[in-house]
Order: sequence, then C-alpha cells, then structure tokens
Amino acid sequence: MSIGREKVRRLVSSYAQKWIHLALLGAFIKWVFYGSLIGLLAGTASALFLTALEWATQQQTQYSWLLLFLPLGGALTGFCYQNYGKNSSKGNNLILEQISEGQESIPFRMAPFVLFSTVLTHLFGGSAGREGTAVQMGGSFAELIGKIFRVDAFDRKLLLMCGISSGFGSVFGTPLAGTIFGMEVVAIGVVEYQALLPCFVASVVGNLVTLAWGIHHVHYAMGPVPAISAPVLLEVVLASIIFGLTSILFSELTHWLKKLYTTLFPNVVIKSFVGGVLLVLLTYGIGTRDYSGLSIPLLQRAFVEPVAPWAFFLKTVFTSLTLGAGYQGGEVTPLFVIGGTLGNALAGPLHLPLTFLASLGLVAVFCGATNTPIACFVLGIEMFGSQGSVYLFLACVISYLFSAHTGIYQSQRIGISKS
Amino acid sequence: MSIGREKVRRLVSSYAQKWIHLALLGAFIKWVFYGSLIGLLAGTASALFLTALEWATQQQTQYSWLLLFLPLGGALTGFCYQNYGKNSSKGNNLILEQISEGQESIPFRMAPFVLFSTVLTHLFGGSAGREGTAVQMGGSFAELIGKIFRVDAFDRKLLLMCGISSGFGSVFGTPLAGTIFGMEVVAIGVVEYQALLPCFVASVVGNLVTLAWGIHHVHYAMGPVPAISAPVLLEVVLASIIFGLTSILFSELTHWLKKLYTTLFPNVVIKSFVGGVLLVLLTYGIGTRDYSGLSIPLLQRAFVEPVAPWAFFLKTVFTSLTLGAGYQGGEVTPLFVIGGTLGNALAGPLHLPLTFLASLGLVAVFCGATNTPIACFVLGIEMFGSQGSVYLFLACVISYLFSAHTGIYQSQRIGISKS
Repeated sequence: MSIGREKVRRLVSSYAQKWIHLALLGAFIKWVFYGSLIGLLAGTASALFLTALEWATQQQTQYSWLLLFLPLGGALTGFCYQNYGKNSSKGNNLILEQISEGQESIPFRMAPFVLFSTVLTHLFGGSAGREGTAVQMGGSFAELIGKIFRVDAFDRKLLLMCGISSGFGSVFGTPLAGTIFGMEVVAIGVVEYQALLPCFVASVVGNLVTLAWGIHHVHYAMGPVPAISAPVLLEVVLASIIFGLTSILFSELTHWLKKLYTTLFPNVVIKSFVGGVLLVLLTYGIGTRDYSGLSIPLLQRAFVEPVAPWAFFLKTVFTSLTLGAGYQGGEVTPLFVIGGTLGNALAGPLHLPLTFLASLGLVAVFCGATNTPIACFVLGIEMFGSQGSVYLFLACVISYLFSAHTGIYQSQRIGISKS
Repeated sequence: MSIGREKVRRLVSSYAQKWIHLALLGAFIKWVFYGSLIGLLAGTASALFLTALEWATQQQTQYSWLLLFLPLGGALTGFCYQNYGKNSSKGNNLILEQISEGQESIPFRMAPFVLFSTVLTHLFGGSAGREGTAVQMGGSFAELIGKIFRVDAFDRKLLLMCGISSGFGSVFGTPLAGTIFGMEVVAIGVVEYQALLPCFVASVVGNLVTLAWGIHHVHYAMGPVPAISAPVLLEVVLASIIFGLTSILFSELTHWLKKLYTTLFPNVVIKSFVGGVLLVLLTYGIGTRDYSGLSIPLLQRAFVEPVAPWAFFLKTVFTSLTLGAGYQGGEVTPLFVIGGTLGNALAGPLHLPLTFLASLGLVAVFCGATNTPIACFVLGIEMFGSQGSVYLFLACVISYLFSAHTGIYQSQRIGISKS
C-alpha cells in the first residue's frame, strides 16, 4: 500500500469515524421502527393465513368431494388475477425484481389476493406451500410502508428484504432462517450486510407476533446423529448430490409446465381450469390424498417410518402441476416434503438412520431450490437443534453447489457464479 | 427487463447450463483435494501448537519466575523477525492483504516463526491468544500449496481463505465457525460464496485432524436461557452495545499502543524488551497471574461465579500491551476472556443469569472486533448449542453494528459501509 493511498484512507476514515456512531444509532432506531412495523403486519398476516390454512386443510380432509371444485377454484383465481390483480401474478419474482432493479410498483392488493387464492388452492386439494404467500404478503406490506414514509430507493430495497424475512420467519417459526433468507435469496452467491439488522428485526418481531396470536408450529426431531467418520461423510455427500439434483428436477419441471400450460392455453382461466381437471384425475388415479395440500401428515410419517420410495417424485409432480397451472401457494413446504421423503427413501440403501436423512433431505432440497445455503443451515439448526450441525452444513453446501444456477425464483440474480 | 437483455441472459445461461455440472464436479473434486491438503497440514500444526501451548502454560504456572524472562523473550522474537522473518511480522494483515490485493508473497517461514514465538509469549507470561498463530500457519501452508501446484491468482485467494478457515476451525474446534470466518473476515459487510466449499472442506478436515491427534477443547455451557420477552431483549441489546464498544476499546488501544511503541522505540528488539519490562512490572503490581497467557481459568470462573468487574478492562490492557509491544499470539482468546468477564460483570446490574450473559459477551466482543457476525453466531451455536440462538444472533448483530468500522485486522477491507 503506497503512502499516499494510506494517507487518503486515514483521512476518510477519521472523518467517517467522528460521525459514524451517530449515524449507526440513527440507522439502528430507524430500522428497529421499520422492521417492527413490518413484523407486526406480516406476523399478523401469517397468523391469519396459518389459521385459514388449517381450516382449509381440515375441510379438505373432512369433505373429500371438495377436490371436484379445484378446477373452478383455479378458474376463479385466474379470473381475479387477470382482471383485478395488476402485476400481482408475478408473485415472488415481482418482489425479487424490485429489490434488484426496482422499476415496477408492488400493489397492496397482492396481499389479500395471494392469501385468498392460496387458501382456495388448499381448500380444494391442490398441492402447494406457504412461503410464497407469506413472502408476498410481507413484500406488499413493506411496499405500503415505504410509500407511506416516502423512503428512497435504497431503503425501499431494504424494506422489501425485511418483508421477505418477516414473512418467511413468521410463517415457519424460524426467525433466524428468515433473517438470512431475506438477505441471501436476492442474488446467488453474494450476501451484503446492510440488511442484517432490518431483516433480523422484521423476522424476529414477525415470529413473535405470529406466536402471540396463538399459532403453534409442527416440530420435527432429527433423532440420533451418527458419529462423524469418512464413510458417513461420503454417504451424506452422495445423498446431498441427489438432493441437489432433485431440486433441479422440481424447479425445472415447474418452470417447464408453466411455459407449456401458457403456450397451450393462453387464457389463464382456461389454463387453471384444465390444470385443475388434470390434478383431480391424477388424485383419483393414484387413490390417495397424501400429495394434496401441504402433505404435512406424509412428512411426519417420513420422520418415523419408511414411506414409498416414489413419494418424493409424486409430490414433485403434484406440486409442479399445481403451480405450473397458475395456482397460488408457496414451494417451500412441498420442498420440505420432497426432501424429507427422499431422505427417508435413501436411508435404506445408504445404511443411515431414517430420521437423520429425512432431516437432511428436508433442508437440502429446499437449499438447492432456493440457493440460500446459510439460511437453510440455520433453518436446520432452528428446527432440529445443533447436534447434527456439521452434517446439516455439509448437506446445504453440496446441494447448493450441485443445483447449479437453477432455482424456483427465476428473478434471482446470479451474483457470483458457482463454478 | 427489456427483451434484448432477456435474450442475452437466456443465451448465456443455456450455454453455461450445458457444461455447468461438469465444471461443478471438477471444482468439487479440486477443492476437496486442496481443502483436505490444507486441513491436513493446518490441523496437524494446530495440534502441535495446542500441545506446545499447554506445555508452556503449565511451565508458566509452575515456575512463576519464568515471567522475568519475558523481556528477553520479546527481544529474541523481535530480533528473529527483524533479521530472518522477511515480511512475516505483518501477521494476519499480510494474509488479508494478499486475499484483497495480492502483491506480496507469504513466506513459508511465517509458520514456524509464529508458532515458536507465540509459545515463547505464553511460556514467559505474556497475555495473548491463539487464532493469529493458527491463521498464519494455515495461510503459510496455503501459500506453499499454491506455489507447488502453481495455481492462478484467483485460486490463490481461495487457498488463503482455506488457510484461515482451517487454522481457525482446528484451533478452536469449531469447524463451521471456521468456515464462515474465512469467508467473512476478508471484507466488512460482504460475503461471496466461491469459497464456501473450499473453506468448509479445509475447516472440517483441519478440525478432524486436530482431534485425531488427541487434542481436547475446553467446553463452556450457556446454562438456563431466559424466555424471550421485551425486557430481556432490551437488556441484551444494551449489553451488546457495551460489548461492541468494548471491542472498539480493545482494537483501538492495541493499534494505538503499536504505533506509540514504534514511535518511541524504532528498534524492534528494544521495543519488545521495554514492553516486556512494563508487563513484568504490571503483573507483579497487580499481584495475580489471572491476566497472563490465555487466562482460561479466569474465563472458566466467569462462567460459574462473579468475577471482578474490572477484569475485562485489565485483560484488555494486558493483551493490548503484549501485542502492542510486538509479541506474537492471537487476539481471539483474549477477546473471549474480555467478553466473558464483561458479560459476567453486567449480569448483576442487568438482572440476567451470569452464565447466559458471559456466553453472549464471549461471542459478541469477538464479533465486534472481527466484524464477522455470522461466523460468531455459528461459533456460539457450536460452543453452546442452539437453545439461546436468537439471543446469540441479536448480540452478534448489535455488537457488529456498534463496533463501526474498527476491528483488530487493519487490512480488513470495508466492503459495504455499516451506516
């Protein structure tokens, strides 16, 4: 380092030092305020959503004929989005695009639209998840707050990241994973820390608010963790490569079906109707409701006893068909189910404990599909505790690597190439 | 997104997609190889270092007159570095600079030099740590491997990050914190994931190798964790601001003393000798060896019973004086002790459990001084388990924020400003 450069560095640094603690305190107060506000709204919305979802799932389980209304539900959703949804139908991608480039506005109606139509999807037995809904509600609240307080473009991005974190953290009851997810999901391979405090506040407050509304989350346990040894590490690497490739199958199949449906049926109402009919036929064809809705009972079984080795594939097909046909809902819970059942199926051939591999699969397939390895690792810690932490990290790194640049979010930027 | 741009994006992506799995597999095999090699060397070096350190600490405890030789030990170290050390005396900063700019070479002799002189520091009762030594050994091995295999400039950076991760992970027995530390420490506020797999392999292998050599690490427990509530969160925020400001005190005092010593005594041999005399007088003056060496017994006490409220300050002064006078050794274990004792002292006034706040302090002061919040959070998880994870994260975020752009590594780049 030359002397001139060093001098300049010192000057800049001494000037910045004088004021930095005031600036930091200001930023701290500002983001505790904004983050809490978003957390309050997103956490409340998540509580409402989870309650509605539980009701819808109960109805679907109790009155199995509701499935017959799936095509109509889809047509209704498509009609509403087309005529009144503005650009809401872009979903999570709209929010990610606004964080990266920021030329469009996120309409407030996105929140009620996605909430209502996700509940419809589940009520009528479509196969979908929750995170998309929670993230879109969080994003739409964040945009509203940004408009009310007239924040600048930079703060708007941070607010939107808060919205993602808050939605994710509150809907899954994993505030730390939510924090990092909001920061990591924007671009593959790079994380910038400006959003660290904002996302953390939004996610923690969101989760506390959801809990305060009386919501309980389903718990899973990893069970006994094998001692670290070369064979076990190799087996986990092998399993994680499969988890990563499976995440590609899910992402690409969903994207491909979306394109195919749109080409075949340019009218979204007809598209969703036909997609619904196909799902109804498929559900009656296989004769089980295991793959409808969130598939939480299937996931719970995958943690205690062997499930069908093709379960992961059927869940992939059901969810891709549901989302491909334009139904609303998230991808993350289906990804949990795909990973959990795949891990369950691999446990036998790899001679590893079933619960252990189901846990790794749950986290790793999700990781491959979202390209958020640290968030997924932290999710694993929050769900299963820390005793399997090295394996969790390993599974996330390998799945992240082998999912290449595919993923469920087409508007995710490639910040740094993986290869 | 305009159509032209979208088209280009798709073309690039379809081309890249074809080959990416081959490229990923190639990168995977390459970095498992390089990472394991560095882990093997750095893990073995850490085992040797920790064994030597234990011996030195035992000698110092048994023969307290060894303290009288501290000035001579310092003079010897200074003499060796000046005449035979090349640029080794730049320490951790040399490695960080090579990762960021890369114009100098890291001499292999850095490893034996720092190992030998750190053991001397501890044998004669100086106050210092371990991470600097482990990181420098790891970095010097990484450079050697880079030279042998004639890697390009980009891979050399990744190798050096592996060296940091491997040294850190193996010397503290925290492979995941080591992984992230190597990625996070290079620049404040930005993490890039190219090094994720390389650092992970190097750190995990390094830790396994150190354990295989029969090394045991001291364990600490967080004890009962208070339920999350607004008052507790506020108290933890307050404590964490104090942790962050204390990290500034440590970093700035050490830098200032380094400058002052160098101005007063341009001859490094005299500098270290005089610094040693001062330390001897100070040690006899306060009449305890609590602040000499690693101060592990003091840290262990801080986890079970109240310690003197000024302990954190004395440890700060002792370590700053030791490192400021040019003695070798790391900063991290002293930072653990400073944080642990400060947390211990704050527990009373803040009405929080002593062990709980000592744990948070240990992690948070370290976090403020190194600007590596995720690594510190993960370190906390690896040391204390996951039950206090939200508090750990909170403490890391706040301390990171309030330490501003200060830190113990002067060559750490500011990637993204905190304010």
